Amino acid sequence: MAESLAPGDTIGILGGGQLGRMLATAAAQLGLKTHIFAPEADSPAFDVSAARTIAAYEDETALKAFAAAVDVVTYEFENIPAATAELLAGLRPVRPGPAALAASQDRLTEKDFLTGLGIETAPYLPVEDAGALIRAVGKLGRPAILKTRRFGYDGKGQVMIREGSDLGAIFRSLGGAPAILEGVVPFIKEVSVIGARGLDGSFVAYDVTENVHANHILSVSRAPAKIDAEAAEVAIATAQKIADALDYVGVLGVELFVTEEPDADGRPRQTIRVNEIAPRVHNSGHWTLDGAVCSQFEQHIRAVAGWPLGLARRHGAAVEMRNLIGEEANAYAEILREPGACLHLYGKAEARPGRKMGHVTRILDRDV
Amino acid sequence: MAESLAPGDTIGILGGGQLGRMLATAAAQLGLKTHIFAPEADSPAFDVSAARTIAAYEDETALKAFAAAVDVVTYEFENIPAATAELLAGLRPVRPGPAALAASQDRLTEKDFLTGLGIETAPYLPVEDAGALIRAVGKLGRPAILKTRRFGYDGKGQVMIREGSDLGAIFRSLGGAPAILEGVVPFIKEVSVIGARGLDGSFVAYDVTENVHANHILSVSRAPAKIDAEAAEVAIATAQKIADALDYVGVLGVELFVTEEPDADGRPRQTIRVNEIAPRVHNSGHWTLDGAVCSQFEQHIRAVAGWPLGLARRHGAAVEMRNLIGEEANAYAEILREPGACLHLYGKAEARPGRKMGHVTRILDRDV
Repeated sequence: MAESLAPGDTIGILGGGQLGRMLATAAAQLGLKTHIFAPEADSPAFDVSAARTIAAYEDETALKAFAAAVDVVTYEFENIPAATAELLAGLRPVRPGPAALAASQDRLTEKDFLTGLGIETAPYLPVEDAGALIRAVGKLGRPAILKTRRFGYDGKGQVMIREGSDLGAIFRSLGGAPAILEGVVPFIKEVSVIGARGLDGSFVAYDVTENVHANHILSVSRAPAKIDAEAAEVAIATAQKIADALDYVGVLGVELFVTEEPDADGRPRQTIRVNEIAPRVHNSGHWTLDGAVCSQFEQHIRAVAGWPLGLARRHGAAVEMRNLIGEEANAYAEILREPGACLHLYGKAEARPGRKMGHVTRILDRDV
Repeated sequence: MAESLAPGDTIGILGGGQLGRMLATAAAQLGLKTHIFAPEADSPAFDVSAARTIAAYEDETALKAFAAAVDVVTYEFENIPAATAELLAGLRPVRPGPAALAASQDRLTEKDFLTGLGIETAPYLPVEDAGALIRAVGKLGRPAILKTRRFGYDGKGQVMIREGSDLGAIFRSLGGAPAILEGVVPFIKEVSVIGARGLDGSFVAYDVTENVHANHILSVSRAPAKIDAEAAEVAIATAQKIADALDYVGVLGVELFVTEEPDADGRPRQTIRVNEIAPRVHNSGHWTLDGAVCSQFEQHIRAVAGWPLGLARRHGAAVEMRNLIGEEANAYAEILREPGACLHLYGKAEARPGRKMGHVTRILDRDV
């Protein structure tokens, strides 16, 4: 396998946050070195990587030196500038590849891609200007959500349109950026599939995970999700379909809405719709670190190294992961005292509001 | 708790091998930084630590700078020079403390310490010269094992005395170093207890682990050990007695022999005898990384940080750990293909014979 790494080889990781940190740790377990490329001098991932580059993602000289020092490139976030990805892809394998970045960086491209695969999403319309917004709201109705096409995360770059909302003011509040209007899906649950696809096209997925958000930020994930077995099967098959269509290599997070409507006989039937794709390890998969045989981080490292995927089997009857956001991490001493609570802190110096400082996993003997 | 660390604080680790590497990874998970002090420039632990010092253990200037840069000092091996430990202990808390080093660095001191606690060991006698060896063999009989009092590991510094062995030649083969003669214990199994004692005196232990050695090097560990429940209880109580006597802080490995003799009614009864104490995380506890809620490495970090101990509960019906010694690590690709096998490679450049290159853990659904 010429495209596979050998122990001692180096994985280059773009981004030095907690995802890069947990990826670097997983790589070390497997005898691989990591080289983190990040602009911030105090990046949490630097503490656990053999090498680092502190430079802007647009610094071509630094990118070329980075590529020369590593055997394969991966990333912890999807908003890699296209020019950066292209430059690196010309020098080293970039996994997941450029198609995954293109499909996930822009909400309109993402929805068009999913729709083209026959996968259901929220209803949506592109919005280039205030006039288009008025027409789109006319078609999709209220409530609806206006989102910038690019660079949104944790609820940033989106605004809810309700009865009486001033559409002109709302469009201006996003700074005139190209946007997309999405109809509101009347979901009963938000779930995600964390799947991994290997260089050989093999695919594994963890149990579908149920997610609870607070202030647009993931708060709690629980696996397995309490949804119908058929909906769970469809969710996993959907993630595989996406990964196959992108010739994906690595871990992929797919966020989905579950809706429930009566079927022809009046029995409740669950349907899934894809909300968005994350071409990377995903916050809702953090439970796999303590709660599965092979974690999502090891799975991603195996995939980008060109190695076989690991076993996604869950420990325990159920696993719960809670994010520690901002000041919540101050409860670390209490969490350490709780038998069986697995604490993870990301080594961030400052606990700003909304900042993910760590998480805690609980492996449960009983169903939740 | 003034003696406890806070997230972001730094644990100094003496020694940069695989144990230091896995300790550093566990510290990072908990939001603590590590600073590795090791003489070898290519130490495996450097890849996963925020800071490093490359210097000899006798370099006082380097040791002082190291102490000034860390909040607490621990170590991955027991053969720390006494002067090094004393110097550091004068500047920072050293955990486990000097008593643990003193009790474990010298086989004679160790046996006297254990005997003083009423703990059974192999019969032993000190051997200062060839004449003392002849007298000791006369008392303990043959076979017996002559071991140097200090600096032995993986069978180094020991030699078996059989019928017809030339005692003078054997004494000279150890270079005239102070030695100890041990009677051979007719054990049916070798087991170990991996226990942890916190700064507050609390104690937890993992399931007693059964160990198989090949060429004096640990080959396979399995938990739980298939020994009588009473013997397992005594083994764990013995480890706790040792830890309490040393006012120990951290993870302790206690190697034990299990013998079986008929009791008064002719029923087989198992007895344990302590072979040796390791004042550190121990190879036979590596299964806890994948096979327990809180690993021995996290447990040690919690203890030396002055934090509460974690849950030592096992995943699965049983767990097996195999060392990958020397060329055995070349089988990594095959191990990666095996569903559920958890591979660990230590990042060592050269696979010398007898060198521990990695290990593989298997969590088993069934008893072994």
